[in-house]
Amino acid sequence: MWARSALNLSDLSSGHTKAPDRRIVRVGVLVSGNGSNLQSIIDHVEAGKLAAEVACVISNREQAHALERARRHSIPALFLDYRSFPDREAFDAAAVDALRGHGVELVALAGFNRIVSRVMLDAFPGAILNIHPALLPAFPGSHAQRQALEHGVRIAGCTVHFVDDGMDTGPIIAQAAVPVLDNDTEETLSARILKQEHRIYPGAIQLFVEGRIRLEGRRVLIDRDGENVTGSLCNPPF
Amino acid sequence: MWARSALNLSDLSSGHTKAPDRRIVRVGVLVSGNGSNLQSIIDHVEAGKLAAEVACVISNREQAHALERARRHSIPALFLDYRSFPDREAFDAAAVDALRGHGVELVALAGFNRIVSRVMLDAFPGAILNIHPALLPAFPGSHAQRQALEHGVRIAGCTVHFVDDGMDTGPIIAQAAVPVLDNDTEETLSARILKQEHRIYPGAIQLFVEGRIRLEGRRVLIDRDGENVTGSLCNPPF
Repeated sequence: MWARSALNLSDLSSGHTKAPDRRIVRVGVLVSGNGSNLQSIIDHVEAGKLAAEVACVISNREQAHALERARRHSIPALFLDYRSFPDREAFDAAAVDALRGHGVELVALAGFNRIVSRVMLDAFPGAILNIHPALLPAFPGSHAQRQALEHGVRIAGCTVHFVDDGMDTGPIIAQAAVPVLDNDTEETLSARILKQEHRIYPGAIQLFVEGRIRLEGRRVLIDRDGENVTGSLCNPPF
Repeated sequence: MWARSALNLSDLSSGHTKAPDRRIVRVGVLVSGNGSNLQSIIDHVEAGKLAAEVACVISNREQAHALERARRHSIPALFLDYRSFPDREAFDAAAVDALRGHGVELVALAGFNRIVSRVMLDAFPGAILNIHPALLPAFPGSHAQRQALEHGVRIAGCTVHFVDDGMDTGPIIAQAAVPVLDNDTEETLSARILKQEHRIYPGAIQLFVEGRIRLEGRRVLIDRDGENVTGSLCNPPF
């Protein structure tokens, strides 16, 4: 099945330019922190590289800088206080109400530090994405970059995937790999990975928007019009 | 500690040229199958790119083509029949005897389909390497490429690591990443990964030979004389 057959926008210009007279997808972004991935999405939208509109931003942390970023771009920014809800499902129900109220069709988790419940999954079936700072299935969960350093991998990276009811287990849409250097700290490695996150998350959302993502089992196939990726990354660089 | 402080060959010429009047490391290669990684090691030695000598090749399968490859290069080739030993330790004891008989200092597993026991680990402490066709810690064990395809990763690869008593769990020396394409089969993906195996295994052995590998916890640090690897691999190629 096509993950988004009802909204096949493959007739969008292939140059990824914004087509204001055509259909653009309303994205709701869930955040908990700094929101640099949110910023990257906003920047790609404003640059006409992503046929989407950030319809609202929801944070479970009042102090999340992401909320401030949203407001700067006149995007509705909402804080939902976890403590005021009896459980995860009640929080998610409120978030779903807000997302629907803003006409959201695609939910993008961007540094959102909570597992979403069935309430959210059922409200947006096949339309919730997440970005994770590791080459999944390696290093799911928290502190992925630290896990990678401590394990001693020489290649790390990031992953955009559909959200399912597991922890960072959903079908993978896009990945990017980077080298781990001998003198890396958690900070330097995280920065190197983050740069790639800012590249692949808007890219993956655009593929979704264009209806070019197809699921076969848990494998994501992408209509690239015959375009193939080549190359390799080797560390150490023999 | 330096994994190989007793044999620090860092005074070898840094151009990786063969230095016949200097110390070269005697490598024993354990195989079970085709032996293309063995061939790559032999080719690198013969091209003067690897300051080692393949001192012997041991197979647990009589029909392994790797044995034929060894004989073609006048390398002692030994078949050890698993069925003639009561257990893994007895097999390993015979293998250790043969390796020592050929003056082996470094053991390289190359498509060897058996877990080595403490007998082997204790005989060659910190001096047993393996190559695995996945970006460990993802997809250890058999059929790694098939596992990667079925999981739907978009970036796969291979890993050279020290062997410990786990299954593909030892400290990582080198990794290479390659894209997974939509139309990949187990065969096409395996071939793409194998090309990188042939690149990183001789490279990692040369680092070992040069005494440039240092263990810090389970992290392998490599003296690259300040050389840094850069770049990234992104799939899809945004």
